[in-house]
Amino acid sequence: MRTINVGLLGCGTVGTGVAKILIENKDLIFSRVGAVLNLKHIADIDLKTDRGIQFNDGMLIQDAFKVVDDPDIDIIIEMIGGETIAKDLILKAIHNGKPVVTANKALLAVHGNVIFKSAIEHGVDLAFEASVGGCMPIIKSLRESLAGNHIKSMAGILNGTCNYILSRSSEDGSSFEDVLTEAQKNGFAEADPTLDVEGVDAAHKLAILTSLAYGMEINFHDIYIEGISKITPMDIELAGQFGYRIKLLAITKDSGNAIEARVHPTMIPFANPLSGVNGVLNAVTISGDAIGDMMLYGFGAGMMPTASAVVGDVIDLARNILSGSTGRVPSLSYQMDHIRKIPVFPIEDIRVHYYFRFSALDRPGVLSKISGILGDYDISIKSVHQKGRKTKGAVPIVMLTHLAREADVQDALSDIYNLDVVSDPPVLIRIEDEDGED
Amino acid sequence: MRTINVGLLGCGTVGTGVAKILIENKDLIFSRVGAVLNLKHIADIDLKTDRGIQFNDGMLIQDAFKVVDDPDIDIIIEMIGGETIAKDLILKAIHNGKPVVTANKALLAVHGNVIFKSAIEHGVDLAFEASVGGCMPIIKSLRESLAGNHIKSMAGILNGTCNYILSRSSEDGSSFEDVLTEAQKNGFAEADPTLDVEGVDAAHKLAILTSLAYGMEINFHDIYIEGISKITPMDIELAGQFGYRIKLLAITKDSGNAIEARVHPTMIPFANPLSGVNGVLNAVTISGDAIGDMMLYGFGAGMMPTASAVVGDVIDLARNILSGSTGRVPSLSYQMDHIRKIPVFPIEDIRVHYYFRFSALDRPGVLSKISGILGDYDISIKSVHQKGRKTKGAVPIVMLTHLAREADVQDALSDIYNLDVVSDPPVLIRIEDEDGED
Repeated sequence: MRTINVGLLGCGTVGTGVAKILIENKDLIFSRVGAVLNLKHIADIDLKTDRGIQFNDGMLIQDAFKVVDDPDIDIIIEMIGGETIAKDLILKAIHNGKPVVTANKALLAVHGNVIFKSAIEHGVDLAFEASVGGCMPIIKSLRESLAGNHIKSMAGILNGTCNYILSRSSEDGSSFEDVLTEAQKNGFAEADPTLDVEGVDAAHKLAILTSLAYGMEINFHDIYIEGISKITPMDIELAGQFGYRIKLLAITKDSGNAIEARVHPTMIPFANPLSGVNGVLNAVTISGDAIGDMMLYGFGAGMMPTASAVVGDVIDLARNILSGSTGRVPSLSYQMDHIRKIPVFPIEDIRVHYYFRFSALDRPGVLSKISGILGDYDISIKSVHQKGRKTKGAVPIVMLTHLAREADVQDALSDIYNLDVVSDPPVLIRIEDEDGED
Repeated sequence: MRTINVGLLGCGTVGTGVAKILIENKDLIFSRVGAVLNLKHIADIDLKTDRGIQFNDGMLIQDAFKVVDDPDIDIIIEMIGGETIAKDLILKAIHNGKPVVTANKALLAVHGNVIFKSAIEHGVDLAFEASVGGCMPIIKSLRESLAGNHIKSMAGILNGTCNYILSRSSEDGSSFEDVLTEAQKNGFAEADPTLDVEGVDAAHKLAILTSLAYGMEINFHDIYIEGISKITPMDIELAGQFGYRIKLLAITKDSGNAIEARVHPTMIPFANPLSGVNGVLNAVTISGDAIGDMMLYGFGAGMMPTASAVVGDVIDLARNILSGSTGRVPSLSYQMDHIRKIPVFPIEDIRVHYYFRFSALDRPGVLSKISGILGDYDISIKSVHQKGRKTKGAVPIVMLTHLAREADVQDALSDIYNLDVVSDPPVLIRIEDEDGED
């Protein structure tokens, strides 16, 4: 009976989940893989916390480098997170010829190119299904199932905290701040939620997905990022009246010589299946030249769903070891000599539909001034609505536009805010409509 | 530059799609696989039809056995369908040591055990992602991504024809017959739609999924099958009033020593994401001990989505050839010596919630007679409604039950139909509620 020894670095929430699956489902995994996946060592600075698992004597140690240097260990699972010690450990494992499983999206988004290059040089597999979308097999789908497709676009709800906040606000009109506080109490949001609510976490994931989809170097820094902290219950309610829901979407589109890659609050029609994805759930739609549209939907975070994806990766790497097929599927979906630098469109160049909300004094001629400026910038208005209550003497004027260029929109809104009849900064929310009309 | 030669048997709709992808996306596939997938021969009796593809001279031939016997061909794609010649060709290919890709669910559901046994004996891979759910990676998910999970249950909308008919009836109240005729005109239903509308096609797919999920021999003949031909617009409308949609679901649940496996019209609450899957789209929800719930959603049929799954399989097998890792993942998800015969519950033993509709004469005491019989059989009523128009002197009485045993329900309905105040056979629709209450 063959045994594959596994070393786990970091035994926090997800790490504990991984240990649970490897220990409790050992027989099941054996019946599928035909070999024992043996969790030999777990490294964590905290040796005391009761994690609800029966560890063997000496299994839990403090020194992660000892695990990475252990010649008996065949696969390393990095669950420490962050961009410093985790990076050193992964590079050391690769250097030692050990394949690595990680869920560390921040690390891969920022330092991925170096890490993947090192893995290829050392002939080592690197698996990271759990870095995007928790239990959903989005990375395996892009690398394997959809490998015959030109990927045309993807749109994902990739951050559970944001989706929870927006869903709750949609349900009962609570403010961002109130739901965030509640989410922190319930464990759905971090004590410091900045990376989540400002869209950075979703952008880390998008950087990984775009690389896999199009065969490009990982490019996090050119992704446009806008979070949800400025989304008000009023805009959520108005969106609903127009048949839209507001979601934080990570969007990418292939435009031939460049790609779009952006994370921002987005209005999507009720008919879009992403609009029904609520709470902490995640989903990704993928559009390809053969598949048409496909969606994956499930828990994008949490102890066990994320651990499931990690163990799926461990099983993949174990199967590569058992069949002597390291490098069978390239980590980044394309062969290394086919990975190119593909430029990302600056946000100023995108063309989408827009929702605007202006706070204007209730005076004659206001509408004509606003629409005049929009006209000057070639922004064509689809509909105008005066909705909602007057607040502080100002009335909300809502407009939906035809396709317009972001640079024009930014300039126009800046001019409109300079009007003395407009009291607050204009609100802009991008709309993704699939109907293709302008 | 390495080349993998591919032979395609059958160039109908999906076969043509496969040829299109292999020819038109050849460079893309090369950039991902690192080898050329060369479509060497296509066998079809029809050499004349213009399929919109530029075939090389001599590529299209009539004799499928010549392709299977060609020593230069590395992978065989069987797209002929049916259970006779397709079976002979697959077994011959296996015998010749060639891995096979097929989408032939009827063949695998009925003759799968023999075919898989032969593939293992000859050390040959057999891939069949396209046999279930078109482009959705349900088989790869069960075999690989979710391999660390005990699968607890699955529920799938696996037949596009049925889903199209039920969705259209839900939208505008059209009858089964009218929508079927329209679907046949639009190419969404076969000239002989029996296998689809009577649930047999969905049951073929369910037989494959249950085997992969639980490690059991393929067992098509014990699946309970009930189609949608008796579903009326009235029941669809009433279901909506109670917060349910009616879908043809393929359902399986692990109950320890036996499994449930059944295909029938099912009422599911609006909150169930499957309820929003409309038209020809397919979806599967999978529940596992680690992932919680996950859903895959996409086109379950059609030329290009199905072809995408076939090409994904071809790429998988090509990667096995290139890395010398045939048998890396067992075709049926479990190692052969771990595949057991697991019994399927007879339908009589299941316990679910029910919707009943009785056509009763509008006389005093009718309700008491019906509810008396239900009480005698230990069937507890959750709610009673008299809804809808009186037709031919009878009024519809609708009841929703708590959990009840199917055998009791069948006996009770038989007794109720014998009442002289009940004019038509009672309507029974099973309900799947996730709330777990009784």
